[in-house]
Amino acid sequence: MATHRLLVISNHAAEFSELLTTAQLPELSFTCVLTPEAACPHCEDAEILFGAPELIAPLLEHCPELKWVQSSWAGTTPLIDHPRRGYALSGVKGIFGQVMAEYTLAWLLNFERRVSRHTEASHWDDAADGSLLGKSIGIMGTGSIGEAVAGFLKPFGMSVHGLNSDGHPVSHFDRCFPFSDRLAFAEGLDYLLVLLPDTPTTNRAVDAALLAQLQPGAILINAGRGNSVDNAALLRALANGQLGHAVLDVLEAEPLPDDDPLWQVKNLHITSHTAAPSLSASIVGIFCDNYRRFHAGEALHHLIDFAKGY
Amino acid sequence: MATHRLLVISNHAAEFSELLTTAQLPELSFTCVLTPEAACPHCEDAEILFGAPELIAPLLEHCPELKWVQSSWAGTTPLIDHPRRGYALSGVKGIFGQVMAEYTLAWLLNFERRVSRHTEASHWDDAADGSLLGKSIGIMGTGSIGEAVAGFLKPFGMSVHGLNSDGHPVSHFDRCFPFSDRLAFAEGLDYLLVLLPDTPTTNRAVDAALLAQLQPGAILINAGRGNSVDNAALLRALANGQLGHAVLDVLEAEPLPDDDPLWQVKNLHITSHTAAPSLSASIVGIFCDNYRRFHAGEALHHLIDFAKGY
Repeated sequence: MATHRLLVISNHAAEFSELLTTAQLPELSFTCVLTPEAACPHCEDAEILFGAPELIAPLLEHCPELKWVQSSWAGTTPLIDHPRRGYALSGVKGIFGQVMAEYTLAWLLNFERRVSRHTEASHWDDAADGSLLGKSIGIMGTGSIGEAVAGFLKPFGMSVHGLNSDGHPVSHFDRCFPFSDRLAFAEGLDYLLVLLPDTPTTNRAVDAALLAQLQPGAILINAGRGNSVDNAALLRALANGQLGHAVLDVLEAEPLPDDDPLWQVKNLHITSHTAAPSLSASIVGIFCDNYRRFHAGEALHHLIDFAKGY
Repeated sequence: MATHRLLVISNHAAEFSELLTTAQLPELSFTCVLTPEAACPHCEDAEILFGAPELIAPLLEHCPELKWVQSSWAGTTPLIDHPRRGYALSGVKGIFGQVMAEYTLAWLLNFERRVSRHTEASHWDDAADGSLLGKSIGIMGTGSIGEAVAGFLKPFGMSVHGLNSDGHPVSHFDRCFPFSDRLAFAEGLDYLLVLLPDTPTTNRAVDAALLAQLQPGAILINAGRGNSVDNAALLRALANGQLGHAVLDVLEAEPLPDDDPLWQVKNLHITSHTAAPSLSASIVGIFCDNYRRFHAGEALHHLIDFAKGY
């Protein structure tokens, strides 16, 4: 049986290499590199690419033997946008639910329980803090991450509303709305969590009209993609109190430059795309599972539909 | 049927009065006051006292008709310590689980997800944050609050150890240790949550020997009673890095004076006894439920054993 050729391109190349060596996958030889430039000499006979979408995209046209790309990130836009097709593209799903729930709870509880204020306190202050109990949250995007987050939030006695393409019901959500009803979905929400992929449909889905529907003083968290939020409308809502706080993990241009005025907005918190860290062991675990399927001629897990973009 | 006489003494007298009026309890007349002084003229024929233990304790000897005291707080030490007995004492249980879980998660996630650091950030910083996944927490005190907190934490993939009098198993805990094995219980814990009542046994239960057992850089949260922690040992552990952070909701003398040096310790956070706010509606709900039992001659809920102190 012929050996399969894998090329890994990732900032975590060394770590991935060690994990792949330990995994002892059958009939596989691999090379791990940090950059597209270093990858070039190995493209000619690579059947499988594994790594960061933005590092893999420039290599697609140099890989005539390419059969499968395993992304190491949930977002795969650079690959979806590239004209080269004719290979299987698999993403990473199922490992981000808990870290995203932790991120969401960290920020909601930070505001409700006034963690920053207590941290800075220098005298006794026993004014009552808030609670998640009885609050309402809307989650835009009810895929595997959104569903997992809803499952972590539900025990706190919140009403959890979801927004997806056609309003189909999803576990842990009290109610799901179709994208066309996004304003009804947003009405009166205490918290809004955006977990949308980057597609033409999601562009500026969080606009002035949607923000105006929220409970005054609401909290917005965007941990999906930067294109979802209309930043001008966001800044107006933060300034006039319609939003109490916004937490942005993602922006249209990353990294956000040091001199960007967003850093200075008092009730806007920027978390530098750390909401769902790609835990190397989990990601290599997904690759190994999929490789065994590839090797056995079985269907891969977490396949992405180029037409839908997710 | 004779009308029962209720005297309410609480900082929330006005709110309690409104809630009791709405409840329309049968055969009950009541007076709501803010202080023991204001309560005195009503003590002579009061059968039931409802309110804050430290406000009720000075009245005990002036209430010859007293049959039942409903505490509005989980801690009832001022009543336990008072020589007057011969009445039923009921506490409040079951309503603090979620708020205590929120408090615990707010602080653990604040540290793991570096909320304060992100809040203050003025440039892109995508260093990976931590997670609760795979961490170990020990909860000292496995009563109704501790058990509820364990239930909220378990889905995050933590090992949850409990400490109680005899090591009896409790739901949601992976393992419970008897009080005599407190050092084995503490060994290697990433987080320690103290929810102990104020009893002679719990005095200085968190001492230098116990702190030395924790994982270096561990996080300590005390949201039980102030007597549990040896503050001198705590300060040494915070200074030498054995503890990464400590969060104290309770202290032996409250309120902590403005000039107390504890306010200035960088990795010590003081939350002014706000961890489990007594939500008035929930507490009056417990009273109403118990009053209907009292009125019907049934056993009260949440009765406290004077000998055990809880």
